[in-house]
Amino acid sequence: MESEQEITAAYVGIGNEILSGSIQDANFHYLAQALRELGIRLMRGIVIPDEQEVIRETLDLLRGRFDYIFTSGGLGPTHDDVTVEGVALALGVRVVRHPYLEEKIRDYYGDDLDEASLRMAEIPEGAELLMHGEMSFPILSIENIFLFPGVPQLFRRKFEGIKERFRTRPYHTEELFCRRHESEIAPLLSEALDRFPSIQIGSYPQWDETGHQVKVVVESKERESVERAAAHLRKALE
Amino acid sequence: MESEQEITAAYVGIGNEILSGSIQDANFHYLAQALRELGIRLMRGIVIPDEQEVIRETLDLLRGRFDYIFTSGGLGPTHDDVTVEGVALALGVRVVRHPYLEEKIRDYYGDDLDEASLRMAEIPEGAELLMHGEMSFPILSIENIFLFPGVPQLFRRKFEGIKERFRTRPYHTEELFCRRHESEIAPLLSEALDRFPSIQIGSYPQWDETGHQVKVVVESKERESVERAAAHLRKALE
Repeated sequence: MESEQEITAAYVGIGNEILSGSIQDANFHYLAQALRELGIRLMRGIVIPDEQEVIRETLDLLRGRFDYIFTSGGLGPTHDDVTVEGVALALGVRVVRHPYLEEKIRDYYGDDLDEASLRMAEIPEGAELLMHGEMSFPILSIENIFLFPGVPQLFRRKFEGIKERFRTRPYHTEELFCRRHESEIAPLLSEALDRFPSIQIGSYPQWDETGHQVKVVVESKERESVERAAAHLRKALE
Repeated sequence: MESEQEITAAYVGIGNEILSGSIQDANFHYLAQALRELGIRLMRGIVIPDEQEVIRETLDLLRGRFDYIFTSGGLGPTHDDVTVEGVALALGVRVVRHPYLEEKIRDYYGDDLDEASLRMAEIPEGAELLMHGEMSFPILSIENIFLFPGVPQLFRRKFEGIKERFRTRPYHTEELFCRRHESEIAPLLSEALDRFPSIQIGSYPQWDETGHQVKVVVESKERESVERAAAHLRKALE
């Protein structure tokens, strides 16, 4: 599935509070929808604890394999904010203080400045600062890794700010519904896959007040193939 | 953090529909909360596509490292349901048809039986069938891997059915709130960690109608340490 034609991505959510169930990760689902709309295939969504070594090993696994890696969380000033250190470890670079960020932070805090807030001026050496319009603070990126804050409002605002740079050929999707057993339609789906090798088909049983149904999703970057496969399946599933 | 005293777990959500953003994974957050209540530390939450080879490599990474692995999804009768195959690959065992499951499926479908539904009688060779009270279909488990269906209602019902076997010493948690900058309280948190080495502290900035606050979570399996650390911090954060 990691086809050459597709641009791929992985999401890394960093936060003990998600793993302990205190909060529900809201960024993964948002990013999944946003990337799909941009024509990018999300291949992994991984939530890990606030530990430098785990961040390092996770990025080691992902960064050579997928086109973009988006991290969420661990960018604040406290002891459990270790994303910058973890990324630096993975890339074998130092953590350095960025003069522009230091200036922004000194301006913002003024006389209230404390040492800990200057941690937020630290970057993996060589990271770029991506600015966009109304952002008060830039997004860090280094190689193919983009570092986002975990707070959902900030994650979204920042992703919206830079997302157009990622846009590629869109996916085309058609959804069909039928009230037959999934096992009954399984051979029809397999047969459609043989006939239209460029498409992907998903099949999802659902239950609601009106009973049971199966949602069948037909998808590809080739609009015509999707239309032909969906027409074929609509007939077969009747 | 992977301390000897703690029982650890990982979640593996298997489903293209989650990665494409069509549906939001509801089982990860549910499981995170349920495991925490049972005294188990969830160490990873990983969502991967419906691909045997990816399931294999993911389980290879996790199964020797954490005490329990819970998978979600990929157990139905269609071409994209490949969890049983992926688990079998990871463990180096064959996929075999289980006579009891075959009988259940034949009884259920009766004359409507089709070949595809018998795929749901397949198990990784050597897997156990866990039954509980009102379950219509057992949970498969093999070594430390437990296979759950992706449909949230079924995932919950089945997990509720067997969860007591996982219960261990509970976590104790106290939450404190304060309206100071996170960077200002960062040194206080670090100092508390030095003073109470058996606890974990998380710090989470929040925004709501009333403004900004920081939630500080103090946690450990030692109730007394949590109480002492929380009392200490409550004073320090005033």
